[in-house]
Amino acid sequence: MKIALAQLNYHIGNFDENVSKIIDHIKKTKADQVDIVCFGELAVCGYPPRDFLEFSDFIRKCDAAIEKIRQASQGIAVVVGAPTLNPVPEGKDLYNSAYFIADQEILYVQHKALLPTYDIFDEYRYFEPGSEFQVVDYKGKKIALTVCEDIWNIGNENPLYVTCPLDHLIEQKPDFVINVSASPFDYDHAEDRIEILKENALRYNVPLFYVNHVGAQTEVIFDGGSIVMSASGNVYEEMAYFEEAYAIYDLDSVIAEDQSLEQPKDKIKEIHDGLVLGVKDYFGKLGFSKAIIGLSGGIDSAITTVLAVEALGADNVRVILMPSQFSSQHSVDDSVKLSETLGIHYDIINIEEIYKTYMHKLEPIFGNLPFNVTEENLQARARGMLLMAVSNKFGNIVLNTSNKSEAAVGYGTLYGDMCGGLSVIGDVYKTEVYELAHYINRNSEIIPNHIITKPPSAELRPNQKDSDSLPDYDILDEILKLYIEERQGPDEIIAKGHDPALVKRILRLVNINEFKRYQTAPALRVSSKAFGMGRRMPIVGKYLS
Amino acid sequence: MKIALAQLNYHIGNFDENVSKIIDHIKKTKADQVDIVCFGELAVCGYPPRDFLEFSDFIRKCDAAIEKIRQASQGIAVVVGAPTLNPVPEGKDLYNSAYFIADQEILYVQHKALLPTYDIFDEYRYFEPGSEFQVVDYKGKKIALTVCEDIWNIGNENPLYVTCPLDHLIEQKPDFVINVSASPFDYDHAEDRIEILKENALRYNVPLFYVNHVGAQTEVIFDGGSIVMSASGNVYEEMAYFEEAYAIYDLDSVIAEDQSLEQPKDKIKEIHDGLVLGVKDYFGKLGFSKAIIGLSGGIDSAITTVLAVEALGADNVRVILMPSQFSSQHSVDDSVKLSETLGIHYDIINIEEIYKTYMHKLEPIFGNLPFNVTEENLQARARGMLLMAVSNKFGNIVLNTSNKSEAAVGYGTLYGDMCGGLSVIGDVYKTEVYELAHYINRNSEIIPNHIITKPPSAELRPNQKDSDSLPDYDILDEILKLYIEERQGPDEIIAKGHDPALVKRILRLVNINEFKRYQTAPALRVSSKAFGMGRRMPIVGKYLS
Repeated sequence: MKIALAQLNYHIGNFDENVSKIIDHIKKTKADQVDIVCFGELAVCGYPPRDFLEFSDFIRKCDAAIEKIRQASQGIAVVVGAPTLNPVPEGKDLYNSAYFIADQEILYVQHKALLPTYDIFDEYRYFEPGSEFQVVDYKGKKIALTVCEDIWNIGNENPLYVTCPLDHLIEQKPDFVINVSASPFDYDHAEDRIEILKENALRYNVPLFYVNHVGAQTEVIFDGGSIVMSASGNVYEEMAYFEEAYAIYDLDSVIAEDQSLEQPKDKIKEIHDGLVLGVKDYFGKLGFSKAIIGLSGGIDSAITTVLAVEALGADNVRVILMPSQFSSQHSVDDSVKLSETLGIHYDIINIEEIYKTYMHKLEPIFGNLPFNVTEENLQARARGMLLMAVSNKFGNIVLNTSNKSEAAVGYGTLYGDMCGGLSVIGDVYKTEVYELAHYINRNSEIIPNHIITKPPSAELRPNQKDSDSLPDYDILDEILKLYIEERQGPDEIIAKGHDPALVKRILRLVNINEFKRYQTAPALRVSSKAFGMGRRMPIVGKYLS
Repeated sequence: MKIALAQLNYHIGNFDENVSKIIDHIKKTKADQVDIVCFGELAVCGYPPRDFLEFSDFIRKCDAAIEKIRQASQGIAVVVGAPTLNPVPEGKDLYNSAYFIADQEILYVQHKALLPTYDIFDEYRYFEPGSEFQVVDYKGKKIALTVCEDIWNIGNENPLYVTCPLDHLIEQKPDFVINVSASPFDYDHAEDRIEILKENALRYNVPLFYVNHVGAQTEVIFDGGSIVMSASGNVYEEMAYFEEAYAIYDLDSVIAEDQSLEQPKDKIKEIHDGLVLGVKDYFGKLGFSKAIIGLSGGIDSAITTVLAVEALGADNVRVILMPSQFSSQHSVDDSVKLSETLGIHYDIINIEEIYKTYMHKLEPIFGNLPFNVTEENLQARARGMLLMAVSNKFGNIVLNTSNKSEAAVGYGTLYGDMCGGLSVIGDVYKTEVYELAHYINRNSEIIPNHIITKPPSAELRPNQKDSDSLPDYDILDEILKLYIEERQGPDEIIAKGHDPALVKRILRLVNINEFKRYQTAPALRVSSKAFGMGRRMPIVGKYLS
């Protein structure tokens, strides 16, 4: 039996494109004499469709897509994910389902039983959990169909759910398992995925064919990495990361375990490739091609610019250098050098006159009040306005350049340097930004070394350094990771040896700056806990603040 | 038996304040010879605590709060909501529970069974549903304890859940039901609440004591309106809206139904009072007192200013009038008149010079390209920057003045008029804004009539009117309500008699402007479907767009 996995880049709500991609692959597999071709979870509508699922019109379009796929399935079996209607009034209106369609007939529909409702996932918002499990008989084989999370509730000390779908399915002695997934990237996820597939294989002694999405949907990036796992827990093949892929597997070869092809794992490379894909898809799926970035001379905007050029091409990226009276000459020089190396268009607008005009107009109100954060923010906002103006005039999208460390502690100006349609490195800590810079420069000096080696500064007042207001980034990032990714409280973090006053100060800064993060651009998610839709915090809360 | 309901304004994560409020009320009820005093759902930590629930530290603080309440319960029974730990590893780590504590002993803990996971609610993200139901025996009475949603799954044609907790509890023949709630306001909710309590009373033939939260937590407003419902479905008493309240009920009198006290219902008054409380609590709970607003001469900023003055007092509200070369004289005159009527401080800053400075600096890039939305946005952003600067200098919070109609179709400038810490009328359609204006002027002309009668205009280019780019607001709002509140698709809306091209254009505008709303301030929620945390839409989606 020949089984094909199609690891595709879907677009939420773009039924025409999704269906035509799926049908193109069905045609290809027919030519290749494939028996079963597998697509991803909710493939017809893209993932996550979010509250579009609450529209009957949207569900009807999903049904119409399935109907087209059914018609295209003559002579082949197709496994594909789509929402389906719950036929009884009790419970949620929908199921998250996997169709098994063969020869223009819907042989079976398996409803997902385990509905992730944590981090970025909201599945119980829309779906009723499935509770019936039935293997599919096809061409003499028994096939267990599962949807994403359905295979993830084993091997944990603290399981999220009270049931394991394969515990039921295994009683019907399936020959193999198909899992249709939409399992998003984070830099630890590929290992986790292999581990969970291995545990399933070992526990149930069956091969698994796991097919994932690839591509970004706003902040959520799917890395692909679809897997064929042998019954003994050998990775028969792990498909490519961050690109569409299509492969045909012979079931007997998988059983014989005659190969073992894993992707190399490299955290910084994965973050890099994920971010490039994230930028590319944000523009492509919104129908834009051109980005604009404010290049400050610092490492964050330098990295963002390099990633944008990789994603969109040098012709589609322009930058503006916007020095003020507080900027150092090297900021301009380094930025010019980077722009020339990348071959991108740059403009220089000195903001001093704008700043002075504001201060002049505000003088009747401000009087002789001393320089404070107000004047710093004015500079950042003047820059934001210039970027937005050029973006409005020429149809570019402004890319935000904030990193996760500063987003965490509120070290940024709302409507100023926090502006932009997409935050490229908003889930990358400052210490990881440096690692990215070294990765980018691995073969040649793309980012001028001086940008990497000079002490970070916002340059919003004379001789300002980040270290004036923040602890060293290696300490800051360690505390932030414990709080944000690990969800540890102050006592646990202090018990790790960190200065109690510093821990309390940092946690307080994170919590009181929720209002700022609420209003910032979606940030491409590369960690297991990014700011945004996966981290939901009260603004008026008074906890550790 | 005497039962007290304490309808209190909690503050998320502010354990000291919440516990001291609760204990103060316990002391008062003891003095009043009360048998049972009831507080709200998750009262010790406030609602919704969101991802704070994922911190063990936070849960320990909830436990410590319950311990203090237990110690204070000598000689009285206390019903109070708090999260509790799920003792088994399987399933979510927490329950959403109601404690029944009497005479320093925890007699029973009832776990919520129906976990709202829709609109603004994310309960299944955190909680395992309860599945055991036991009445509490206390002073010769049998009491059925329920938590909020637990009584809401009856009488629907399309029930959200597959079970009804009271179906189980009623078998144990309770004398009455206590329901601890955190049920947020929308302008239809008071009627719905009475209706659902009536249906429960009639179905189970028991009296119900329903206690709600009051107060706002960022965008979510709790209106109070706690209810005592007799077994025959008579509203024995509905407590006050939008203020803390405390009342003692004699069970025998409730059984005898010797009174019937409902609050008057008035949509616009409720919206008005809810928004005033929303502004007041946003400032109070964040520790701020002073607001700043850009007064344009239009009705939206006028309404916002009036509401701010009601919430914070005239001394705590300042406005800036920021005319440009495109502003009409009446915009300034009307704004001055309103400011004088309200007795608030106003400043006037003409933005023409700022605008010209930007255009001068941008000239090398823009060349002779024609005036377009770029220049309109520049004006709106210059105003936003001035507001933010004054707010930074003096510690005010900028209040956003966008209404729901313009937020829906993206008729506003990101980082410009869409700036601010809180959107006051972002869930109020333009047609409702006019109703609010008439309500505010019901006794005297607070808002100058000319502001109400003149055609709305953004005044960002010569002789601009909203009607140049948008249909009449009565048509626009009707289509928006069908799409947003009713979640109808294009076919259903067109079938109601609306122009197909217009429907498609408006739905498209709503969907392509998701990126703007993603970055705007939280909007006080007064409808059943507000933008923000209760409406979750993809940005890169391609559906109706």
